[in-house]
Amino acid sequence: MLSKAQISLITSLQHKKFRKQHGLFIVEGVKSVLEFLSSDYQIHSLYTTAEARTKMGNLPQKLKYIEITPAEFQKISSLTNPQGVLALVHLPTLESFDWSLLRQQHNLLLDDIQDPGNLGTIIRTAEWFGINHIICSVGTVDAFNPKVVQATMGSLARVKIYYTSLGDFINQSEMSTFGALLEGKSIYKTDFGNAGLIIMGNEGNGIGDDIVKKVDYAVTIPRIGNAESLNVAVATTVFCAEIARQKLKPS
Amino acid sequence: MLSKAQISLITSLQHKKFRKQHGLFIVEGVKSVLEFLSSDYQIHSLYTTAEARTKMGNLPQKLKYIEITPAEFQKISSLTNPQGVLALVHLPTLESFDWSLLRQQHNLLLDDIQDPGNLGTIIRTAEWFGINHIICSVGTVDAFNPKVVQATMGSLARVKIYYTSLGDFINQSEMSTFGALLEGKSIYKTDFGNAGLIIMGNEGNGIGDDIVKKVDYAVTIPRIGNAESLNVAVATTVFCAEIARQKLKPS
Repeated sequence: MLSKAQISLITSLQHKKFRKQHGLFIVEGVKSVLEFLSSDYQIHSLYTTAEARTKMGNLPQKLKYIEITPAEFQKISSLTNPQGVLALVHLPTLESFDWSLLRQQHNLLLDDIQDPGNLGTIIRTAEWFGINHIICSVGTVDAFNPKVVQATMGSLARVKIYYTSLGDFINQSEMSTFGALLEGKSIYKTDFGNAGLIIMGNEGNGIGDDIVKKVDYAVTIPRIGNAESLNVAVATTVFCAEIARQKLKPS
Repeated sequence: MLSKAQISLITSLQHKKFRKQHGLFIVEGVKSVLEFLSSDYQIHSLYTTAEARTKMGNLPQKLKYIEITPAEFQKISSLTNPQGVLALVHLPTLESFDWSLLRQQHNLLLDDIQDPGNLGTIIRTAEWFGINHIICSVGTVDAFNPKVVQATMGSLARVKIYYTSLGDFINQSEMSTFGALLEGKSIYKTDFGNAGLIIMGNEGNGIGDDIVKKVDYAVTIPRIGNAESLNVAVATTVFCAEIARQKLKPS
């Protein structure tokens, strides 16, 4: 049984303002919800249809769990093909940076990425290649936007996302910065070392002027054909894959 | 002035059946239309608003060009933010394969890619990395679907797309085949040589069994983190970038 108050709460969480107000975000789909159930995130409540419940296995005893009809589920789902499973999850509390950890690895910095699909794909791809910390400018699209959560295919449950001033973060980090720029050294000739900050810019405008000034190594993905540009999630992929290659098989 | 017949023709081209019937497809947006105007494609007709017309520069004299109002343009546009420029373009005539050219380079084979956004991103990315021939299984989403055309950002004007039986193509090609598979040799340890066929599979099911049998080299993108899978456009990016790296800077 689904109350009007519940429908109103859940649909309000499509908007960042209400996610902040309630401290909650939405995760949909069997696989994604299972990933969050087995993560450090705190689950607020879980809505499922009777049929979808059977796909969820054993649920934690103390979990607040509401079984609803398929017709009711339609009212709260934002997917084209609802799977009958939707969780409300508590937004993570802001952790301070673990500098000793961050300084030992490559971290991704995103300067005003706007498209939810791009951010979701970047989170999923970064995790594949072992990058677990993503620092976003405050102008970057909210990672807890349902479209981003969906596009990460569960990776959001494991990758840590921070929103902060990139300039301040870079200053405090004392780490080398590699910026994805149109004019720079070929990515294939760049030595990324054992740790560093990889900076990717906005879809239309690239990295902002204030952050470009803080780039130690301008890095370019060489263009062989005539395409005018690469999608930012695609460009991020090339960086993640090349860093992985250098770690796995130094040339 | 836009007639009902014109509106009906243009909106029908959202569907593959009518694209085939009329031999036409839709290209929208200033930049994309300009790319097609300067390509080998034959333009059937061009619809623009007066304002958008000024952004198009000199148009070929013999071009059939129809100026319409912004309100009329809304009726034919399928973009969220219409730019006031839409062209109907003749579908390319089926060319026979230029085997002597194909055998000298790396070509991309797509086995039943379903998502228009993925196919569009793959075409755009392939072109960046110098891959200009893409051979699609007949079950792959139509490249002249407006969503694919849009996602290629103009690259479709230059990359050649074929639809055929991949099995027959592979047999006839007599080329080495590299298949993106979960179990295989690391992509970073694979020598792609000077030419070959790179095979990418369907989003959910990967490469079909009949085509897997024809794979000479099973190639894997090593996973460092815990993400369960990579998006197929992302995986294709890693292949294109690694082949480019080997060409530009042999290890």
